[in-house]
Amino acid sequence: MSNTDPVALSADLIRCASVTPEEGGALTLLETRLAAAGFDCVRADRNGIANLFARWGPKGHPRSFGFNGHTDVVPVGDLAEWSVPPFAAVECDGVLYGRGACDMKSGVAAFAAAAMDFVRDTPPKGAIILAITGDEEGDAQDGTLALLDHMAKAGEAMSVCLVGEPTCRERVGDMIKIGRRGSLNAWLTVTGSQGHVAYPQRARNPLSALVRLLDRLAHHELDQGTDYFDASTLAITTIDTGNPATNVIPAQCRATVNIRFNDSHSGDSLSLWLRDQADMIAQKFGVEITTEIKVSGESFLTPPGPLPDLIKGAIKTETGITPELSTSGGTSDARFVKNHCPVVEVGLVGKTMHQVDEHVEIDQIHQLKALYTRILRDYFA
Amino acid sequence: MSNTDPVALSADLIRCASVTPEEGGALTLLETRLAAAGFDCVRADRNGIANLFARWGPKGHPRSFGFNGHTDVVPVGDLAEWSVPPFAAVECDGVLYGRGACDMKSGVAAFAAAAMDFVRDTPPKGAIILAITGDEEGDAQDGTLALLDHMAKAGEAMSVCLVGEPTCRERVGDMIKIGRRGSLNAWLTVTGSQGHVAYPQRARNPLSALVRLLDRLAHHELDQGTDYFDASTLAITTIDTGNPATNVIPAQCRATVNIRFNDSHSGDSLSLWLRDQADMIAQKFGVEITTEIKVSGESFLTPPGPLPDLIKGAIKTETGITPELSTSGGTSDARFVKNHCPVVEVGLVGKTMHQVDEHVEIDQIHQLKALYTRILRDYFA
Ligand SMILES: [Zn+2]
Ligand SMILES: [Zn+2]
Repeated sequence: MSNTDPVALSADLIRCASVTPEEGGALTLLETRLAAAGFDCVRADRNGIANLFARWGPKGHPRSFGFNGHTDVVPVGDLAEWSVPPFAAVECDGVLYGRGACDMKSGVAAFAAAAMDFVRDTPPKGAIILAITGDEEGDAQDGTLALLDHMAKAGEAMSVCLVGEPTCRERVGDMIKIGRRGSLNAWLTVTGSQGHVAYPQRARNPLSALVRLLDRLAHHELDQGTDYFDASTLAITTIDTGNPATNVIPAQCRATVNIRFNDSHSGDSLSLWLRDQADMIAQKFGVEITTEIKVSGESFLTPPGPLPDLIKGAIKTETGITPELSTSGGTSDARFVKNHCPVVEVGLVGKTMHQVDEHVEIDQIHQLKALYTRILRDYFA
Repeated sequence: MSNTDPVALSADLIRCASVTPEEGGALTLLETRLAAAGFDCVRADRNGIANLFARWGPKGHPRSFGFNGHTDVVPVGDLAEWSVPPFAAVECDGVLYGRGACDMKSGVAAFAAAAMDFVRDTPPKGAIILAITGDEEGDAQDGTLALLDHMAKAGEAMSVCLVGEPTCRERVGDMIKIGRRGSLNAWLTVTGSQGHVAYPQRARNPLSALVRLLDRLAHHELDQGTDYFDASTLAITTIDTGNPATNVIPAQCRATVNIRFNDSHSGDSLSLWLRDQADMIAQKFGVEITTEIKVSGESFLTPPGPLPDLIKGAIKTETGITPELSTSGGTSDARFVKNHCPVVEVGLVGKTMHQVDEHVEIDQIHQLKALYTRILRDYFA
């Protein structure tokens, strides 16, 4: 039997128009291929979101290597700006184009191809698990979380997990992610009392209080970074009032801030800090400030140790590169997996993710399959 | 011939639905009445706005007493909240109800009635001018300004002018306005560069710059007030961004501030200060800030002297009250008249102006006519 071509599989997946929450045939295709390769497949769908769980080897084996990824993609945006149809998987001059080419259908194809060929050529003493979701780009509440819930109920477990998201800067292997900063959003509503601009002393202008509060928040140094993390950051993302009258002081205004935080904070500690700051300003200015906070994910770290070492070694052997260990970037499903087992992210070069004319170098798909194969070999050695 | 009833005339004017810019029959009614009383009447309409110029006595006489006022009214707002039809001029328990009852159809009726009866009973050596506009509550660009332009072209002039806006707090005569603070609006647009919230250092967040700038502006003490003026005040009236994405730092945001300023500033000096502050912040934060400024009116003062003394004396004689000389409140057409001749404002109690169920005590209309009559008598004595 010939080796699985990860490029052809990438192209097949790109042709499935699986914009979140559409399955688009992508997981069905993978289920068919994995089942034929001897994997036990179960769909762990939830609330209309498709998720695929596949395992080769015995359930609950203490050496169970997991891969996690997603087949859903972000919308194409302005179709007119694309040079190629976004779901046609056009190949040209060594490059494969299409929505998801980079984030992360080629990554899924690379680990699925590596796993299928590996179990056929060198059946390992242990298990290989693929947990692939159709809801990473959306709310992500019924995606990898549903797969982990399914595993918990079914007595399935991964010993370690590799998330195949694009992580590299220029070349495959130049960066792996061993953690991520946490993220929270806070929606601030300031209520004062309306009045005529000629008599500001008779009104309580919520905007005066809001700019003082936001100036303090935006220019407060949360920390200076930690061993494996950049400094935490706070960004004001919007301030809105909607008062068209130049002679009226408005009664209310709103703002939203986002905090990306490292392991010197938690969602709770930052929520406390935000509410304290808001309360101080509210008291000082005689206004009411309500603060609604949603923590999208806590920060987490897979500290240097067996799993990162294994992956660093495999990268060095396969590509000659010593990867940078990073915790930068946005959130990924690794924030859910880390509650289950040690997790590291390594995948393609991420340059064109979410962009028009998203694409990937075909060579890099082959390199990634070879790297994933090497990681499996080293893990089961 | 019987005396002119200022209450009946007020009611007749209220029945004209003259919401800016509608003339509603109000100026036509006044023109008919004034012409019959011997006034030379000319309409000084401009850009669809009706304005009435009326003079009794010789053109260009060095003793020409002017009255200025408006017959246009603000919209009724929520009709369902009114206890009476707003244009029905309902009289009940000594109170006259209707839009414009207070601001300022009864004021116009009082000075028109006073002037008509005065020239009939004691023809003065000099002239009386009535300059009445239909555009005070709107843009005011084609109202009193058009009347003053007409006068300049026609060789007409007022030696002094009384604006009949509501100025009193509780009783007719308790406050006269001898000036007003100036007013300017500034529209600030801050442009930075868009980016992902996870990497604020790669973006230039316009909101960080804006809150710093506005916090400085809002909490800067412009002055502590002057002899005849309250302290100048600055109010932020709106901040808007319209960014729905919690993971994106926006490229641009806008804000508007209003300054009410006394005679220690001018529109130019404040514009310079605003632009300086904006430039400093723009440089510090690496953003672009454009500042569009519109000066609605400079501050002005008719310092204590012959005209305020005349009016104070008349009030004292007629009502026994010593009026407070004030420069508080919003803008009025006195800001235009002051470029033409000394101007003072005195009129009704302003409590219900622009409100639902606007009304005036009928006794106070009679008191105001008597006061205006006394002022004419003293002026021409
Ligand atoms: Zn992704
Ligand atoms: Zn008015």
